Amino acid sequence: MSLTDTAPPPSTSAAAPATPDPNGPGQVTTGPLRGSQKVYTSPAGRPDMRVPFRDIALDPSAKEAPLRVYDTSGPYTDPAIEIDVRRGLPPVRASWLAARGFETVTPRAIRPEDNGHAEGAYLVQPCPAPHAVYKARPDQLVTQYEFAKAGIITDEMIYVAHRENLGRQQAAEGAAERMKDGQSFGAAIPEFVTPEFVRDEIARGRAIIPANINHPELEPVIIGRNFLVKVNANIGNSAITSSAAQEVEKLVWAIRWGADTVMDLSTGRNIHNIRDWILRNAPTPIGTVPMYQALEKVGGDVSKLDWPVFRDTLIEQAEQGVDYFTIHAGVRLAHVPLTANRVTGIVSRGGSIMASWCLNGHRESFLYEHFEEICDIMRAYDVSFSLGDGLRPGSIADANDAAQFAELETLGELTEIAWAKGCQVMIEGPGHVPMHKIKENMDKQLRDCKEAPFYTLGPLTTDIAPGYDHITSAIGAAMIGWFGTSMLCYVTPKEHLGLPDRNDVKTGVITYKIAAHAADLAKGHPAARLRDDALSRARFSFRWEDQFNLSLDPDTACAYHDETMPREAHKTAHFCSMCGPKFCSMRISHDLKDEALRLKGMEEKSEEFRQAGGKVYVPAAE
Amino acid sequence: MSLTDTAPPPSTSAAAPATPDPNGPGQVTTGPLRGSQKVYTSPAGRPDMRVPFRDIALDPSAKEAPLRVYDTSGPYTDPAIEIDVRRGLPPVRASWLAARGFETVTPRAIRPEDNGHAEGAYLVQPCPAPHAVYKARPDQLVTQYEFAKAGIITDEMIYVAHRENLGRQQAAEGAAERMKDGQSFGAAIPEFVTPEFVRDEIARGRAIIPANINHPELEPVIIGRNFLVKVNANIGNSAITSSAAQEVEKLVWAIRWGADTVMDLSTGRNIHNIRDWILRNAPTPIGTVPMYQALEKVGGDVSKLDWPVFRDTLIEQAEQGVDYFTIHAGVRLAHVPLTANRVTGIVSRGGSIMASWCLNGHRESFLYEHFEEICDIMRAYDVSFSLGDGLRPGSIADANDAAQFAELETLGELTEIAWAKGCQVMIEGPGHVPMHKIKENMDKQLRDCKEAPFYTLGPLTTDIAPGYDHITSAIGAAMIGWFGTSMLCYVTPKEHLGLPDRNDVKTGVITYKIAAHAADLAKGHPAARLRDDALSRARFSFRWEDQFNLSLDPDTACAYHDETMPREAHKTAHFCSMCGPKFCSMRISHDLKDEALRLKGMEEKSEEFRQAGGKVYVPAAE
Repeated sequence: MSLTDTAPPPSTSAAAPATPDPNGPGQVTTGPLRGSQKVYTSPAGRPDMRVPFRDIALDPSAKEAPLRVYDTSGPYTDPAIEIDVRRGLPPVRASWLAARGFETVTPRAIRPEDNGHAEGAYLVQPCPAPHAVYKARPDQLVTQYEFAKAGIITDEMIYVAHRENLGRQQAAEGAAERMKDGQSFGAAIPEFVTPEFVRDEIARGRAIIPANINHPELEPVIIGRNFLVKVNANIGNSAITSSAAQEVEKLVWAIRWGADTVMDLSTGRNIHNIRDWILRNAPTPIGTVPMYQALEKVGGDVSKLDWPVFRDTLIEQAEQGVDYFTIHAGVRLAHVPLTANRVTGIVSRGGSIMASWCLNGHRESFLYEHFEEICDIMRAYDVSFSLGDGLRPGSIADANDAAQFAELETLGELTEIAWAKGCQVMIEGPGHVPMHKIKENMDKQLRDCKEAPFYTLGPLTTDIAPGYDHITSAIGAAMIGWFGTSMLCYVTPKEHLGLPDRNDVKTGVITYKIAAHAADLAKGHPAARLRDDALSRARFSFRWEDQFNLSLDPDTACAYHDETMPREAHKTAHFCSMCGPKFCSMRISHDLKDEALRLKGMEEKSEEFRQAGGKVYVPAAE
Repeated sequence: MSLTDTAPPPSTSAAAPATPDPNGPGQVTTGPLRGSQKVYTSPAGRPDMRVPFRDIALDPSAKEAPLRVYDTSGPYTDPAIEIDVRRGLPPVRASWLAARGFETVTPRAIRPEDNGHAEGAYLVQPCPAPHAVYKARPDQLVTQYEFAKAGIITDEMIYVAHRENLGRQQAAEGAAERMKDGQSFGAAIPEFVTPEFVRDEIARGRAIIPANINHPELEPVIIGRNFLVKVNANIGNSAITSSAAQEVEKLVWAIRWGADTVMDLSTGRNIHNIRDWILRNAPTPIGTVPMYQALEKVGGDVSKLDWPVFRDTLIEQAEQGVDYFTIHAGVRLAHVPLTANRVTGIVSRGGSIMASWCLNGHRESFLYEHFEEICDIMRAYDVSFSLGDGLRPGSIADANDAAQFAELETLGELTEIAWAKGCQVMIEGPGHVPMHKIKENMDKQLRDCKEAPFYTLGPLTTDIAPGYDHITSAIGAAMIGWFGTSMLCYVTPKEHLGLPDRNDVKTGVITYKIAAHAADLAKGHPAARLRDDALSRARFSFRWEDQFNLSLDPDTACAYHDETMPREAHKTAHFCSMCGPKFCSMRISHDLKDEALRLKGMEEKSEEFRQAGGKVYVPAAE
């Protein structure tokens, strides 16, 4: 196979059971990305560990090795792995977990309310993939944080160090210069990532590896500001629409385009069983908001919520393997009146539920009051905290107000409690924030939450563009990522208007990959620019196929090109449809590059230039 | 008609001649935007002057006056004006210009090469709208800059002051606070804009009103960093595709969505006559790159370019009424070798043409050498300079390099020469620039070019997302707009891949309106937030129609909403498809707002909260 053969188009395959379940998952998208090949490499001394990457082949004329990129897509893009969503993914962590001596426990029995009392044809069957349930004893190390504090480097730490190191060897030349060239705002990105560096960052609370011991299918990911900026995609059905099949495919689709983690925000019926299908087929960390299911269990009546039903839900989901929980424990009774004069009140679902609960009985939040017990439950499975920003601003008018910041201060308190209990923690952030107020959020979060990773939604920099809020928020996301946010929660074009469909999910993910990458570049990440430079060289050399394949979305790039110049010959044309052959600046620039170089080398000519150029002459940079 | 009646959908109308010319303009989009009505108001003491705005009607339940917004769409959205593109637009400046005593001259005769030797059926006929040609004598004031320096306030200055003042009366309460709240990076945005302030800004060279005396159809616009950030849209055919009809409709379409100025970058045949149709039907300033046509006239052979053919082209286009010219006079022979080691060489068409010309004969740029003569020609018609950045970086690897900055320094020199000659000047900027290098561009431009307005393309903050470069660049555009750029040149999704079609033009314009508005907000513009707040109030009150109509693109917002909840009843539903009725945070938040307010007002309860909240309590902001 020649380097320029492109991969076959993705197919939907292999997943349908003999008699398809109309409510169960059907088919998912498999096959490599255009021009790409899945590869695995192993950390030094760990031949058993296969860390996935993606090699983008380049035209032989480039005389460049394939460009290797970070790969979130899981086994779905590996033609060598047969996908059957009923069997679930290969449990890559199984041997690591087995070595840690956890007890296998009898899982909590499924109850009708776990699936919203769905029955008969309306009940989605659970995923048949086998799944034993681990639980740690109080006296044994279980969380990545506990191992890190104890000075122990876990398999997950070795894995993510290798994964994050991508390109750094290749980038070694000039890396120091690029890091110096960037503006890191106090981040401490290393030239090379060692497992010990990972351990140290986790022990400091500056990074987390969300990795439930009941999620053996996970390909571990690290979230922290001294690592690559990550992207989360939200999926989930609602009472109005969606099915299990759609949700599993949305997961596969989101990670295909680069989502590092996925949150299942389902709120409708079958919530337990859909989550089962998602987890058994998820190579990425999965997050949830347990409050949504707890509220379903009490029929949507906020006044009936209480600690027992919430506690039960935490255990239910922890046993399934959810890697991080959004817990809105920072919404306290005393904070609610601070929202009274807001333009848009409380816009977080979890926040409004808890505010309503607090006001209902005029009592303190049960999440706040039971926070230590929540920690004990989450620690036993290593479920990471994502401390929710229930009072995030829903309009720029409400940005950085007393309610938002009071909650953030509470989250800082809770962070220290969670650490003391051995848990991993990240902090959720806004929301709607105009550009000039973004940095204040980041700075306050770092200070109040002692550098625990920040995980922000956007922020949206203006309220006036529903239908385009992936863009209003990408502006804010790129900036806050640069300033120090560790993970960006995507926003799709449907934000504020409806549920994202397949196209919206892709648009949201690609948009946020742009924001995350722009942040990596600006922070001075030593290897981030390799892909930009490879693509720009391809562009300047009119290697159109390489330009498409190196892009975040090769299919769209190629389709746009083909709209005006569909013929294959034009894929090698030394011009494009924008300018036509006569006005192509790159063609002209090529023609004169050799001469410019010759001139540059000729000392005599250079002297003439200096005289001709007078005071505006600037010596050529080397 | 009730306030909530929505406007009829836009129609394509009224423009077709009895026997349609297959190469001439056909139909253009007319009719008001959804829920909007065109209105005109007059500056104090000038009842003859009708400055256009757009009123967005709100539901009676809002108890709010219609929201008035800046309007770039020209007569096309005014049902009271009959559009006939053969007759052109009403010459709103005719009486102002007539009073200035300019000579009417016999225009330069059209030559076959002006239209690329198009003949017969291939020749687009000129626009039949009558058009007398003015030219100023050397001894009379003609440019806005000259009037401003002489202490004279022109009609155009009065017009733009009124236009820019929109909302400031309404915003007066709290305006000072908002301005203080923003971060202006040294801009000096006034609480109210007076004609004298406009004059002073123009006299300082900090703002321009591109307004050729041969473009009487123009609704004047001011470009400067102490005014609203503006957006330019590029249109234009190429040798490969497009026709006159498409180009006029692209103009109308671009300004419908908010483009403040439009550049006609045509390079194919019929270039003169297509421009004729565009100018006679353009209420916005029109810019061009005269070099493109000059090169057409010499058959695309760069070596045949010379001063006479360029000079002839300047006069030809100035007589037609082009408002600003991109002139790449900063690309000097001495700069070309500085590009030799770049990743992407020279990516500006004009830049590569001039670099090629310089290297060809190893001689200094004729644009640089004849710069004073260029000034004399442009002054006589008040064509503004847009000093081109021919050496802008085409990849982030080349950002802020010696070539780019050497050219920028030359542009600073040329700015002072142009001012001395009485001309208005703005400066074009990059390009591809990672986030951490954007501010350096702005700061250097302000310093080297003495605060002449900056007009930037993007910048694109990463190279890896062809197909999404409206987004990679919107991030940079919002930031550089905040830092001080006066006008943002849009980038469409087709950048680097193909010519933008109608949808791409709209996407590009809306994306850049987002960036410009985000910048206005961050700078602390006293009235910018009015629209955000109105939309957020509508959102919080479930006034869906108001939310759509207040958005930058009401059609898309409504269409997205209707995808999941198409029924009319859902337009007033107190929830949306994202969460369903049970989980709607806004609904819950509404339910508890009254109670929260009541609690807030009760001193006794507040005291309880203070005790309950302990140290995290923060007093409610007023």
